[in-house]
Parts: sequence; C-alpha cells; structure tokens
Amino acid sequence: MTSKPAIYLDYNATAPIRPEAREAVLRAFELAGNPSSVHASGRAARDVVETARKQVGELVGVVAGSVTFVSGGTEANALAIESAVASGVKRLVVSAIEHDAVIETAAASGVSVAVLPVDEHGVADLSKLSDLLAGEGRTLVCLMLANNETGVIQPVAQASAIVRAADGLLHVDAVQAAGKIAIDFSALGADTLALSAHKIGGPQGVGALVAGTRANVVRRQHGGGQERGRRAGTENVAGIAGFGAAAVAALRDLPQAADQGIWRDALAQRVKDAGGVVLGEGPESGLGRLPQTLCLAAKGFASQVQVMNLDLAGVMVSAGSACSSGKVKASRVVEAMGRSDLAPFALRVSGGWASTEADWIVCGDAWLAAWKRIGARRREVA
Amino acid sequence: MTSKPAIYLDYNATAPIRPEAREAVLRAFELAGNPSSVHASGRAARDVVETARKQVGELVGVVAGSVTFVSGGTEANALAIESAVASGVKRLVVSAIEHDAVIETAAASGVSVAVLPVDEHGVADLSKLSDLLAGEGRTLVCLMLANNETGVIQPVAQASAIVRAADGLLHVDAVQAAGKIAIDFSALGADTLALSAHKIGGPQGVGALVAGTRANVVRRQHGGGQERGRRAGTENVAGIAGFGAAAVAALRDLPQAADQGIWRDALAQRVKDAGGVVLGEGPESGLGRLPQTLCLAAKGFASQVQVMNLDLAGVMVSAGSACSSGKVKASRVVEAMGRSDLAPFALRVSGGWASTEADWIVCGDAWLAAWKRIGARRREVA
Repeated sequence: MTSKPAIYLDYNATAPIRPEAREAVLRAFELAGNPSSVHASGRAARDVVETARKQVGELVGVVAGSVTFVSGGTEANALAIESAVASGVKRLVVSAIEHDAVIETAAASGVSVAVLPVDEHGVADLSKLSDLLAGEGRTLVCLMLANNETGVIQPVAQASAIVRAADGLLHVDAVQAAGKIAIDFSALGADTLALSAHKIGGPQGVGALVAGTRANVVRRQHGGGQERGRRAGTENVAGIAGFGAAAVAALRDLPQAADQGIWRDALAQRVKDAGGVVLGEGPESGLGRLPQTLCLAAKGFASQVQVMNLDLAGVMVSAGSACSSGKVKASRVVEAMGRSDLAPFALRVSGGWASTEADWIVCGDAWLAAWKRIGARRREVA
Repeated sequence: MTSKPAIYLDYNATAPIRPEAREAVLRAFELAGNPSSVHASGRAARDVVETARKQVGELVGVVAGSVTFVSGGTEANALAIESAVASGVKRLVVSAIEHDAVIETAAASGVSVAVLPVDEHGVADLSKLSDLLAGEGRTLVCLMLANNETGVIQPVAQASAIVRAADGLLHVDAVQAAGKIAIDFSALGADTLALSAHKIGGPQGVGALVAGTRANVVRRQHGGGQERGRRAGTENVAGIAGFGAAAVAALRDLPQAADQGIWRDALAQRVKDAGGVVLGEGPESGLGRLPQTLCLAAKGFASQVQVMNLDLAGVMVSAGSACSSGKVKASRVVEAMGRSDLAPFALRVSGGWASTEADWIVCGDAWLAAWKRIGARRREVA
C-alpha cells in the first residue's frame, strides 16, 4: 500500500481494493483458464466463478443461481431495465434521485418514463407511487436502496408492496448500499437488484444483477452461452473472484460499519457548528442513512472549491455525484430535495473499510480551515 | 506460477496473463481512484487509463483517441455492430466464419443479415462480396482478421476496397489476430476493429473498440460520460492498465511469434504422417495462418474424445470454437469450409507467449498415443 493516498474519503466513488480481493484476483490469474474450456484449467476457472457467485449471492441473501455477473453497476442497471422492457414492461417509474445509469438507460429505453419525486429529506415520496403505477401495461419501478450522494436509505420494502399490488416490477439499484448496510433481497421485495464490485472493495469492471423469480433476464450482449445465456462473453474470472472475496469481507465487516457513523456524525456536528448544513439527516421516523456517507453544504463555498482545497490538503472527497466525466456540476440530488439554493455547494464525504477516526478528523480540520479562509476572503470583499 | 498447467495450448480460448500485465494490474490496485474524481487519486487513475489507451492504440497503429475501452471482445463487436445500425446502416454482411459474438449480435440487430461464404481453405470468398453489397441503404461488412479455430488470415484489405467502392463500412474482429501478427488499422482499411485483452495476455473482462473517422461510436450503455460519452460506467482501471501492459509486451514479442509457427508445423507434420488432416493450410497464394494456431482432424477421433484424452495426459487444448458454454459441438467453421465430414473431429491447438517447443512436442506425443489407442480399438471392433 505504498501509494495509499493520505486521506481517502471518496468510497462512494470507488473503494480501495480489499486485501482479500486482491489476493483472490492474483490466485485467479494463476489459473489461466477460460471457464468454457472443458479441460482442467477451464474447470478450475469455472469453479472460481461459481464460488464467487455463491459469495455474492450471500451478501444479499440469495442463492447463487439468482446472480448474473456483468461488467459493473451500470451494466447491471441496464440489464435490469432493458430486460424488463424486452419482457413487456410498457412504462418506467424512476425516482428523482436515481443514478444517471438508471435515469439515462430509462430515457433511452423507448418506453415512457415517469419520475417519482423525493421529499425534503431525500426520501422517495411513496404517496405518489400508486398514481404513477396506474395506466395501461406493466410498469417497472426503479428505486435505489441508498442514495450515492446523501446516503439516504429509501423505503424499498414499502414501495414493493405498492408495486406488487399494481402487478408491477421493482428494480433496486443497491450499488451504494451493498457492504454498508445489511441487504435481504426477499425482505426488500425486489425483483432485480444491481451490485458493483468496486464499491465494496472489489475490483473495478465487475458487477452483478440479482434476479428473483418474477423477473426475466433477457441478454443484451450476444454470442456465447455464458451466464446461462444471460450475458455472452468470456467471464472476467479474476475480477469475479475478487468480487466474491470482497463480498465475503464486506459481509463480515458489516457490524463495524456503525463506527463510521459515529465519526461521520462528529464531523457533521463540526460542520453545523461552523454554519454549514448537513443534507439527508432526515426525520427520526425514517430509515436513516448509510453510516459512512456525509453530504454537507456551506453557502458560498462552491463544491469545486471545497474539493480542490481539500485535495491540496491531501484529503480526497467528491462534489455532486462525481462519478462520471470529471466534471463538477450542481447536485441534481440536492435539487430534487428542494434545496436548489444549496446544490452548487454540496460536498460528499464517504468512508469505508479502511477509513479511521483520524481520517474523519483530519478531513474536518481541512474543511474547517478552508471554510475559514473562504469566509475571511468573503468578509474582505464585503 | 505455482499452479501453471503442465501444458497449456489453448491460447485462443484465453492466454495466461503476462507478468507485465499482472504487475500493471497490481500497481493500479494501489491507486484506489475513480478516473472521474478530480482529486489526486482520481487524476492518477485517469493517467493510468490514458497511458493504456495510447499503448493499446500502438498495437494496431492508431492514436489513443481512436480507442474506446469496453468489457471485452464480445462487447467491442456489439458496440461496432449496434453503432453502425444506430447510425443508419440498413444491412449487414457477415462472413460464415465470424465468431458467435458477431453472428448473434448481427442476428439480433433488427436489420437484414447476409452471409459471405468461405472457400475450402477457410478464406472469405470476396468474389461474392460486391453482389452482397448491392441493394438499398448502407451496408456494414463484418470480416474477422484471423479465424479463431483455423487461424486463417482473411483478405481484409482487399475486402475493404470492395466495401468502400460500395460506400459500405467494414468491421474487423481482430480479437484472435492481435498479438499474433502485426496489425495496421489504416492499411487494413477497417472502420472499426475489436480487441480483447485476455487473448493477448492481459486480464479477462477488458476489450477495446478502435474506430476510424468514417465510423460513429454510439453508446449502448448509458449513464456517466466516461470514454468521451461512448461507454458509461466506471472504468476498469486495473484491467485497462493490464491491457495496456499486455499490448506493449505483445508488440515487443511479435518477432518471436514465428517460432511458434515452426513448432506448430512440426506437430502438423506428425499428425499428417499418422493419417490426420490439417485444416486451413491454404494455398501458397493466401495470406497464411496465425503462426500459433493448428486445426487438425482425424476421422473417427471425436473432438471431445481428443480433448479428454489430452486433458488426462495434462495437455490442454480445445474442440470447436470452445469459447462459450462448455459444450463441445461440431465445428461450424470447419463445416463452412465444406468439410462437414471432418467437423465432428476437429481439434484446436493454440500456443502463445509462454509456449515452448517442448509443449508442442509433448502435445504431439499425447495426441499420437491417444490416436494409436483409438485406432487399435477401432480395429478390434471391426
């Protein structure tokens, strides 16, 4: 870990790879087999893939057969949405705070798309869901389990009851929730669920779509019969092995995730004491947030300026969803919460498996120092 | 390399990872960055991706900007074909010996598909191409650079002249040719070209589509703005780094590839001396074969029986294209060559960067011993 960054608190963008995952990747590299080959080396590669399938399934409480490996969370979401449309879904309902992978795939799907709004806490407004489900043809509802910017956990199980009463389908983007809170696919009432390896400390370039019995997975990548015909192409054996190992480690470490919440809340308090705002803290009655995600804002302290100031201090965090093209733009999620006034000033701090209390404290020190400088400059100008 | 298989001669299915690629993957794992993040760690990850883009471009003689990273050869072929259709192509022409990734993507594309036959040598019959190009609307022709089963190199540059005269587009699946023969994208006259990392000693789960100025790349995976809007989803940084390192090593090792041809030809002679047949040796006037691929057949010695016998002897080879679901079926490529009589008996032996002369000799010993046993048994039955 020679070049491990000084303070990395951008786990929601990507997590450093866990040692267990790195070891699994290296072991798989030794096999040199294509899982479709029938010889010894091919069979060994096949075993690696099937072991990982079981491990990833266990992270969300499903059997291995429910898991289809793909190239990442974006592909998993695309496979879910495109499969539903290919299977006869006529309309989509997506929450206003879904990831671009869901929103843009929905927009390109060729069927009508309605948006489910969120309230001021960043929680999907389920009172609107029944109306959105009414109409001709079957509907697929896309509701993420936890938001990537605020960490706010969505009322997925409650939504599922409404969706099923209308004979709809429910897709759950669990890319950000996995490894941070316990996930039970059946209890959520999901029909499909998307996962990404690199968000839980596995390698980038691997993901999975979990599908229940009500959903059809219709392949969108053609060729070989891999993944039981659901996704053609030679399996990413080493990546899948790393995903499996990361899933085991993430499940094991779940009880410790609460520590992040304590350190996160301490930083939140410092921000609020200094006049900043914390987004998505929600009502007592809500499902809460991911313990390691903090979305803060300070009026006049532009997201990009915050990120750059912290970067200069050796602390790595993100502005907005910060997950696509290197561009920093006003947070769409914060806007959806009715806080357009804060959207240009939102910052996301997100910890994970290797984060320490000291990381959160140093991050807070750097943020407060920068905020103080900015404030002083603003006073000079005024 | 503790568990390196005794004799691995199935490089056309997947190559063992090159040490340079493994090291590059490990170095990238240390970065822990999302290339879309603007902080130091994100910028470092971005640099890794852009360095690899240049390296992969150099393997086929293009600038970095022509390279779009995807999850593998199958996705690269799909992106090429679906992009062409999305850009207005009305018809597809695919050679009879294309990989399933091309044939099945074409079949699912929604436009009409015509098949370009091959001759008895396994070479595309270009005398038929002009007729197939005639008709309403623009045509995309898919002609692989070298076949995965026979290794036969296709007359791509010649095909390009015909395709361009008809204002068509040409997609070249170079997944099997890359790293085995020199590739010059411009000289081939290709509009798009597919590559896969794991076939050249990089990691599985990474590929690239190279696109020239006549082709549009239309994204089929939506969400973030990665790959300049051509392919959404967090980049597989470590995989891409490994791909780049493998491309450099493969380009460096090209001059040594001829050695494989000498050893391959020695094995071919032993097979022929024992009454077997070698497929795709072609006419003197042809472009020849990949130096490390041998497709042989021996009547009465079923492909699967050959593979199993060699596997028991610790030699790993493949039957048919052997690249998809673990099923062994009669070779479609051999059938296309008009040798249906040999199709159930075809075997593919394919070497690569770590193969030695001894590997080819031991493989020949094992094959001849098995063939002798089979022959003895057949004589007993008769």
